[in-house]
Amino acid sequence: MASPRPETKLYEQIAARVRGMILDRIYRPGDRLPSVRELSRQSGVSVTTVLDAYRLLEDQGLIHPRPQSGYYVHAYANVQSAEPVLKAPATSPAHFTRDEMLQSMTHEVDRPGLIELAFANPNPDLLPLAKLARLVSTVAREHPEASYGYGPPSGHRAIREQIAQRAFAAGAVISPDEVVITMGCQEAMCLALRAVCKPGGVVAVESPCHYGVLQAIHLAGLRSLEIVTRTREGISLDALERTLIEQRELGSPVEACLVSPNFQNPLGSSMSDDDKRELNEIANRHDLVLIEDDVYGDLAFEGGRPKVLRAFEGGENVVLCSSFSKTIAPGYRVGWVVAGKWHTQIERLKHSFTISAPSLPQLVIADFLTNGGYDQYLRRARKAYASNVGRMSEAIARYFPPETRVTRPSGGYVLWVQLPDHVDSVTLYTRALEQNIFISPGVLFSTDDGYRRFIRLSASRWSPEIEGAIAKLGKMAHQ
Amino acid sequence: MASPRPETKLYEQIAARVRGMILDRIYRPGDRLPSVRELSRQSGVSVTTVLDAYRLLEDQGLIHPRPQSGYYVHAYANVQSAEPVLKAPATSPAHFTRDEMLQSMTHEVDRPGLIELAFANPNPDLLPLAKLARLVSTVAREHPEASYGYGPPSGHRAIREQIAQRAFAAGAVISPDEVVITMGCQEAMCLALRAVCKPGGVVAVESPCHYGVLQAIHLAGLRSLEIVTRTREGISLDALERTLIEQRELGSPVEACLVSPNFQNPLGSSMSDDDKRELNEIANRHDLVLIEDDVYGDLAFEGGRPKVLRAFEGGENVVLCSSFSKTIAPGYRVGWVVAGKWHTQIERLKHSFTISAPSLPQLVIADFLTNGGYDQYLRRARKAYASNVGRMSEAIARYFPPETRVTRPSGGYVLWVQLPDHVDSVTLYTRALEQNIFISPGVLFSTDDGYRRFIRLSASRWSPEIEGAIAKLGKMAHQ
Repeated sequence: MASPRPETKLYEQIAARVRGMILDRIYRPGDRLPSVRELSRQSGVSVTTVLDAYRLLEDQGLIHPRPQSGYYVHAYANVQSAEPVLKAPATSPAHFTRDEMLQSMTHEVDRPGLIELAFANPNPDLLPLAKLARLVSTVAREHPEASYGYGPPSGHRAIREQIAQRAFAAGAVISPDEVVITMGCQEAMCLALRAVCKPGGVVAVESPCHYGVLQAIHLAGLRSLEIVTRTREGISLDALERTLIEQRELGSPVEACLVSPNFQNPLGSSMSDDDKRELNEIANRHDLVLIEDDVYGDLAFEGGRPKVLRAFEGGENVVLCSSFSKTIAPGYRVGWVVAGKWHTQIERLKHSFTISAPSLPQLVIADFLTNGGYDQYLRRARKAYASNVGRMSEAIARYFPPETRVTRPSGGYVLWVQLPDHVDSVTLYTRALEQNIFISPGVLFSTDDGYRRFIRLSASRWSPEIEGAIAKLGKMAHQ
Repeated sequence: MASPRPETKLYEQIAARVRGMILDRIYRPGDRLPSVRELSRQSGVSVTTVLDAYRLLEDQGLIHPRPQSGYYVHAYANVQSAEPVLKAPATSPAHFTRDEMLQSMTHEVDRPGLIELAFANPNPDLLPLAKLARLVSTVAREHPEASYGYGPPSGHRAIREQIAQRAFAAGAVISPDEVVITMGCQEAMCLALRAVCKPGGVVAVESPCHYGVLQAIHLAGLRSLEIVTRTREGISLDALERTLIEQRELGSPVEACLVSPNFQNPLGSSMSDDDKRELNEIANRHDLVLIEDDVYGDLAFEGGRPKVLRAFEGGENVVLCSSFSKTIAPGYRVGWVVAGKWHTQIERLKHSFTISAPSLPQLVIADFLTNGGYDQYLRRARKAYASNVGRMSEAIARYFPPETRVTRPSGGYVLWVQLPDHVDSVTLYTRALEQNIFISPGVLFSTDDGYRRFIRLSASRWSPEIEGAIAKLGKMAHQ
């Protein structure tokens, strides 16, 4: 005999009240909710009841807990847009052909009054720029010769030590001697591809894929082969393995896979630990070199620092590329590569390319990392990015046509937006630019034209002006 | 009827006395001699007589005038060593194969107590490091966002304007819009080679040739073909033209010539204006692209700033590469390329390689150039380098076996030393390193082993300690 359907429980009533306040935007994405104790006192219910209510809301994806901090409104609590349906990737390897378009875009950035949503720049308002300026002064004054000279070929030891220490939080045990400092993640990837692949080779990439990756592959004389990628969970391992087998049968085996397991650009997807482990296994099974782009790894919206592939069995020879361009300062151009058995070769290539990295920015970042300002800054930045991404998602849901679909990134600060069928993103790009709004058309993120109905927006900043720009974009997308 | 042989003239007596003081090292290389008026008063002879005496010494290559400044002892006044006899360059294009040796050398630099004569680093004691440190502070404080952000793809306008202005002194009219800022001259050359040559192509170079050039060519998938080069006058145009014709007949035409007309490394040679003009003509006649490495151009020992190839007819499409690494700061990694009709392509390649150059060092150097400190510094540096190169040449003449031959550079700060037949420079390198003396073996400056009896020494600094190192090296060379 079934028990009778229960009346609405007390905790459900509490949950409904909080949900109402979230939907009415009294609590907005990123806001902290009242503490359990506080709400218990205010509502005259037990702490257990409030906890049950919060857990219900958590299950519904509206809020999430942060250790030692309480419950927060989830970034996408109010977002109604569906998630994008990605195109089927091209089935044969191809060269990137959008260099010219990208080049013309880099010349637009300086337009006065431009609302810049195209490039994935970190939010300068979050950064302790005054503190960095003080560090710059100190380093230049106290180490004039170090900041002036060529410096060691792999980079200054101080920063290599900091990178090795921080890798521990990402589950990897790395020695400072394994780190080679590069000109941002871009040079790291260029060097890795040169070291690992033979000219004319094929590199598997996520689809969509950051244009910088496609450029690096093209520059190394290699072709990109896009693999189906899920908007939240990252690259499809089934599709990858199938492709590896097919390409080998075709006599054009995939030599490397350049992959971004943590907060991929432009999807914001994250691979699970199980998938990372399996990816290593696939690589070992198929003699595939993994090149990992972890440039957004420090920018999780919630939870701890996600692991890198080297944290899992079989990951010793994953070539790890990253930089401080998305966290501290793009203009410092401090990136790095940890290259396992390719270390010697990469160090040699680095010398032929650019001799060594500039000294001053390395020493400044090393100081910033050492003196502990970085973690505090990261906490603030991660929260702000989660909130800004949520707000931009909301604004898109409000102002864009209802068929518009938007990703739900779990880190980083970009959104990948699928526009209604009638909208061409290259046309939208041009029309937006006429109104001083700068966006990235989706065609930059593939070797073919399959993402012509997509755009990428950077949500690192949020302001009424940016909301106005989203409203204008939405209006254009309606036409 | 012949006139009777005249007695020694008064001015000859004065000249003999001054010569004696130079040979006795009372006046040393780089020293200023007494003014004409002063010597006239001291010696009780007319100003005209002193002038005649100084002109005689000038004709003998012992002294040289500097405008508005007086007469100076020539750098090589006391040097007795003959000049090197260069090997016949390899007759077929080849790849550079000394990457590994170079890499191991870059790891030796940090040895405590090392006397570093191997790498061509500028003299930090000459540089206004304190002033640069102040500029760094000011820039970081006053322009936090500019120094932090990516910056324009071609580099910040302030520094491109300074480079364009300064090019005028080298006879070239360049717009700031033509300048692309790079990671030192090394990246400039890498980009130029990529833009100009087809993979597998052949690039003509001077013999001997700086290893950085050979590395850049190798990295671009190209082969180097060495051309006979004269120790003082630079590349042999006859040999170049002959090679161009031969290679075309062989079906493997030379696509580019990477040449350093002003103070070539390692020779210190300078091409005459006539030769530069003719080189442009040869290039136009044979459809050859000239890539000019002008990294030492600001460091003439005497006279004005030598001209670059673009100063002469037909030089519009010479790709000009240079940097501030040899003058202001290697560790700032600020170089540039002016690429004529390849500009667009080079800017695009730059973006794929490293996105953009670090902002802070660009802004600091732009400030340094704008506020006029640079010219004053250059005057001091040029004089010091002339003097130090002279002193090292003297020391080599004193301590090395008499068959040793040494170049007579007219700018820069390196010496190219030909050792006696029995001395192997790779062995000498190893033995010297055991005694903490660091030199560059000649095999690094060619694609073959022909310079095995040569070493390159950097004479940017001079001290009793360095003199001791030269004495030790000389002793080893005797054995």
